Amino acid sequence: VRYEGPVYPVNPREEYILGYKVYPSIAEVPDPVELAVIVVPAKVVAEQVEACGKRGVKGAIIVSGGFRETGPEGAAREEEIRRIAREYGVRVIGPNCIGTIDAHTPLNTTFVVGMPRPGDIAFLSQSGAMAAAVMDWAAGSGVGFSRIVSLGNMVDVTTGEMLAQIGADGRTRVVTGYMEGVEDGRTFVREAGRVSREMPVVFLKGGRGTSGAKAITSHTGAMAGDLEAYRAAFRRAGVLWANTMEDLFDWGRALAWQPLPRGNRVAILTNAGGPAILAADALEEAGMRLAPLTPDTKAFLRRRVFAAASVENPVDVLAGAGPATYAVCLDALLTDETVDAVVVIQAPQDWFKPASLAEVVGEVANSPLGQQKPVLTAIMGVATASDATQILHARRIPNYQFPERVGSTLAAMWQRCTWLDQAGAEPPPERPGGISADDARRAVEAAQGWLAPDRTEALLRAYGIPVPGSGLAPDVEGAVVLADKLGYPVALKLAAEGVTHKTEVGGVALNIRSAEQMRAEWDAMMRRAAERDPGAVVQGGYVQQMLRGAVELIVGVVRDPQFGPLVMAGTGGTRVEVTRDVAFDLAPLSGRQASDLLEQTSAGKMLEGFRGAPPADRDAAVDVIVRLAQIMLDVPEIAEIEINPLMVMPQGEGAAAVDARVRVAEAAAAPPQAAART
Amino acid sequence: VRYEGPVYPVNPREEYILGYKVYPSIAEVPDPVELAVIVVPAKVVAEQVEACGKRGVKGAIIVSGGFRETGPEGAAREEEIRRIAREYGVRVIGPNCIGTIDAHTPLNTTFVVGMPRPGDIAFLSQSGAMAAAVMDWAAGSGVGFSRIVSLGNMVDVTTGEMLAQIGADGRTRVVTGYMEGVEDGRTFVREAGRVSREMPVVFLKGGRGTSGAKAITSHTGAMAGDLEAYRAAFRRAGVLWANTMEDLFDWGRALAWQPLPRGNRVAILTNAGGPAILAADALEEAGMRLAPLTPDTKAFLRRRVFAAASVENPVDVLAGAGPATYAVCLDALLTDETVDAVVVIQAPQDWFKPASLAEVVGEVANSPLGQQKPVLTAIMGVATASDATQILHARRIPNYQFPERVGSTLAAMWQRCTWLDQAGAEPPPERPGGISADDARRAVEAAQGWLAPDRTEALLRAYGIPVPGSGLAPDVEGAVVLADKLGYPVALKLAAEGVTHKTEVGGVALNIRSAEQMRAEWDAMMRRAAERDPGAVVQGGYVQQMLRGAVELIVGVVRDPQFGPLVMAGTGGTRVEVTRDVAFDLAPLSGRQASDLLEQTSAGKMLEGFRGAPPADRDAAVDVIVRLAQIMLDVPEIAEIEINPLMVMPQGEGAAAVDARVRVAEAAAAPPQAAART
Repeated sequence: VRYEGPVYPVNPREEYILGYKVYPSIAEVPDPVELAVIVVPAKVVAEQVEACGKRGVKGAIIVSGGFRETGPEGAAREEEIRRIAREYGVRVIGPNCIGTIDAHTPLNTTFVVGMPRPGDIAFLSQSGAMAAAVMDWAAGSGVGFSRIVSLGNMVDVTTGEMLAQIGADGRTRVVTGYMEGVEDGRTFVREAGRVSREMPVVFLKGGRGTSGAKAITSHTGAMAGDLEAYRAAFRRAGVLWANTMEDLFDWGRALAWQPLPRGNRVAILTNAGGPAILAADALEEAGMRLAPLTPDTKAFLRRRVFAAASVENPVDVLAGAGPATYAVCLDALLTDETVDAVVVIQAPQDWFKPASLAEVVGEVANSPLGQQKPVLTAIMGVATASDATQILHARRIPNYQFPERVGSTLAAMWQRCTWLDQAGAEPPPERPGGISADDARRAVEAAQGWLAPDRTEALLRAYGIPVPGSGLAPDVEGAVVLADKLGYPVALKLAAEGVTHKTEVGGVALNIRSAEQMRAEWDAMMRRAAERDPGAVVQGGYVQQMLRGAVELIVGVVRDPQFGPLVMAGTGGTRVEVTRDVAFDLAPLSGRQASDLLEQTSAGKMLEGFRGAPPADRDAAVDVIVRLAQIMLDVPEIAEIEINPLMVMPQGEGAAAVDARVRVAEAAAAPPQAAART
Repeated sequence: VRYEGPVYPVNPREEYILGYKVYPSIAEVPDPVELAVIVVPAKVVAEQVEACGKRGVKGAIIVSGGFRETGPEGAAREEEIRRIAREYGVRVIGPNCIGTIDAHTPLNTTFVVGMPRPGDIAFLSQSGAMAAAVMDWAAGSGVGFSRIVSLGNMVDVTTGEMLAQIGADGRTRVVTGYMEGVEDGRTFVREAGRVSREMPVVFLKGGRGTSGAKAITSHTGAMAGDLEAYRAAFRRAGVLWANTMEDLFDWGRALAWQPLPRGNRVAILTNAGGPAILAADALEEAGMRLAPLTPDTKAFLRRRVFAAASVENPVDVLAGAGPATYAVCLDALLTDETVDAVVVIQAPQDWFKPASLAEVVGEVANSPLGQQKPVLTAIMGVATASDATQILHARRIPNYQFPERVGSTLAAMWQRCTWLDQAGAEPPPERPGGISADDARRAVEAAQGWLAPDRTEALLRAYGIPVPGSGLAPDVEGAVVLADKLGYPVALKLAAEGVTHKTEVGGVALNIRSAEQMRAEWDAMMRRAAERDPGAVVQGGYVQQMLRGAVELIVGVVRDPQFGPLVMAGTGGTRVEVTRDVAFDLAPLSGRQASDLLEQTSAGKMLEGFRGAPPADRDAAVDVIVRLAQIMLDVPEIAEIEINPLMVMPQGEGAAAVDARVRVAEAAAAPPQAAART
């Protein structure tokens, strides 16, 4: 099968290429041209794009390398191409890509030989090498593809846009992809979120290593890396996070070929104990569990297997059982209402050909009954099982060489099912009420760097985030007056410019119970501060009501350059960077999303009331998270904001920001996408 | 190649089998017989073992199933076989196994067709199916094996003993294995530890799921599952813990064929960015890092690659580079002193045959220079790379289809290297001094269940574990007298039978600063206890000095049925089961091992002095862990023991067991191996 439309080689020197008449320039090509594939030296690419534009060609794929990836000169060439493409309305894929393959048309603009079997899996990649690897893998494993697209430097068409286009092509049932970075994170989240509602999207993110040193200020800033932002973006958009190339391939074919499980209960049908135990381990570690099976099913199986066989899940028919036994048992397991998915395992044996087992499993799994629930197989072996794999793949049953691979695969399918039911079905978060934007704007007006405590408090109050009663005392006597007004016990905190981690300089004294104790603590604190940080400009002491909370949380937001405000929540305290018991999501957040965030950390359990403690006011904590995220969306001047601890009181008594810090970006550093979003 | 020694079929009915003359019974076989392979119905196996014994046969493999795995009747048959085998001195492998394969002799007693290529990897398995899967995989991937042994129910020969035997066979360079359980954990740890000093041992443990409900008493008991014991045992014995069958195969061939890296710095040589990034991610996630490369190396490479190629690690020679470029660059990377291992990646391309690259990589890696450092390859692709894989495997270079696989593989090699340098080279821990065994024995004498506080304290003191000053007060006035003697502030703790988690019933009051406060807290506590646990028999209140510690740890020991005392340490407090910031090891522990245990949790960082806090007395904490482990070895009556918190004071000021509980086993429940070990 090959492309049957017209092809016009353009080259100034040749007359015929592969039997096609060559034209000296694109301008001289006679017929309407839909797509130009440009493979010329980097420095003449721009003029060829312009020639295409003048000729009315609306699409171009630039295969040539030698652009941004080689340095500033190449980057300048890329800018020139972008300008020309915009001017003439030419949509460009690349440069520095291998082009695109459409197995249905069919069309292959790449230099890679061969065309994958037509199928319904798409692969979208920044890297051309990964696209070539996928083609090779597809050729060897009997897996069909709809499209394979390599995007390269993305001078024009980005991952998000291509994803939307593939989602609408009518041929594709699952989109897999490889990305290193994303040009426009918010577009990716939006488009991927749309496509995810229609079909599974699975991406592998390359470049997960820790990036170089960065200016670390708050705990949130220290813990919120690129990877956390990508993970949050994927989760928000319903994009399944593949950890490896194997995940991409293994999940992709299961998602394309098999229905989603309606629950997480899996039955295993096997002829050997060991591999079934490994599959069960992998399933359990991935969050699935073994189906209990009904007494009816067990009784049915009992009459059809050897006496020594196990009819408890994993159902072990033993090594002497053949394809017929598998067929009957698989049918019974698919009928069992406690079973959401079935895994069929065959350890290598010498009684029958694995191909025969592949045939019967393929037949049962494609029956009307079998099409209701996913069936995955692990017909093991390299030497004996390749026929079986080809048969199974032709019948759209994914086969895995190693039984453990079914674990993450079924878990990914189940994750998609729950995403569709919950997050995917949820309307976008509503803006919380009771916000005074004017007050917020006043709080950050003309500020730069860390916001003073009184302004911080005003900002939080403007967004309806409770703070304990407090005040700034310039001297010790002022502190005593304030404490009398607030009522003992109080806390005393150092108010000094540039000191963000007060505990480190001994700038926090808790549980002060009398005026006398206040005087002693004030003197000691000022002495310590002068000693440990002689450069600090001390403004006085901040006196605050002591709250007896149930649980201490940390809640913070930083501005990610790709994805915008990145929200962090988890268990609070001074040790947060050691325990790292935190989770991340993108703003804005609904109440349910904020609650999920807490559930991902042990804060979820703590809030329930742990070891006899009363349950804490989870709703109040959730409300603070939602509002903090909203501040960052509304006030682009703020670079980061952190509450630690957020003291959560017993149920019904609310939550309060005991300590908070807000950093306002230097004017020049305000990221453009932040301003655009207001 | 096939077995050339004599074979004597024994069967009462046949005359010839496969051309061999059949004997009606083992007694009538004429020549000396070394090994009997018994494949008869379960109920007549015992009499055949007896016949072998009478005939003087010293070894038997029982392939037949129908024993312990089928229920009590089968278990009784197994006992009978064990008795007979001991009586006649017949060593037995099985029953319920597929037997053994020796690729060098060669000998194959299994019913699986085919003989693996002779090689130096052994595979040892409880499961016959896993052995069959390994044979199939070996046949398909060109990997040679020395021996493949299936042990089945292990009525006689156990994993530990077989491991020792394989380690001494002179053919094997790496032992891989699959186990579900271990018959005798201490023997396994001892034998595996011995073999590990000579060659790598890698095991996959099947059956990692959470087992059913168990009586949970202490935090340690709740957190110390079977899996933690196995992990600790493997680590102690230097056995590498494979997570999957792929790990087993991937690590096995690298460990058998390549030298160990001397450090964790890896160079990647690639023709494409994407796969190299994935390899780098996987390496970093597994604890390896990218080698920096010397300026000399970079200058050398610069002159030999395309202008757009990257000479920073990963070294990307780009898609146009062929085998010659790879050869020259690989040589340079192997010469670089900052490089401990090299990974060669080839993404599918159409310029040259992958087999040619396999040849040159095989040649360079087997040069005297190449043999100094491990070289792993990821010549990717299913369709195009199988020739290359065969060539590489024949030259003892492990090839991986997916670049991520090199991550855990090189990390396993590096882990072995560090184990050999540290743990493997360390003498067994010495018994700590200053122990009064008599006092300890008195403390547990005639006790059962949870030990009373005064006895607990006496036990800890007998083993040199410091406890804060304290005493039991029968009534409130006694408590005031005690507190005066100890000095305020003090803590008051409920003393009541059967109450183990005091916090839950409001049985702990801290920071009591005066007699007046003591009276108030005492009354409130007794009221709460009566309310929340009306059945508790209150003995009074335990008054204890308050310590101002730097770090609170939890340290506990439970008795694992397979491996004996299992030590746990980590960050303490009431939330330990939520945060689960703990690690496990087997007793006895050296000081270094106890210190390592703390390093595996965030307690390690906390002890260093976190965020301005002074460093804590790590040595004192380590000493307590060592001593606690020793108690469990010395006093078999104790079932579990836990200190939470162990308060670690600033450096030089020691550590003290603020709260401890000790459970003495009911007489009948004392595990036999505990008694045997004293």
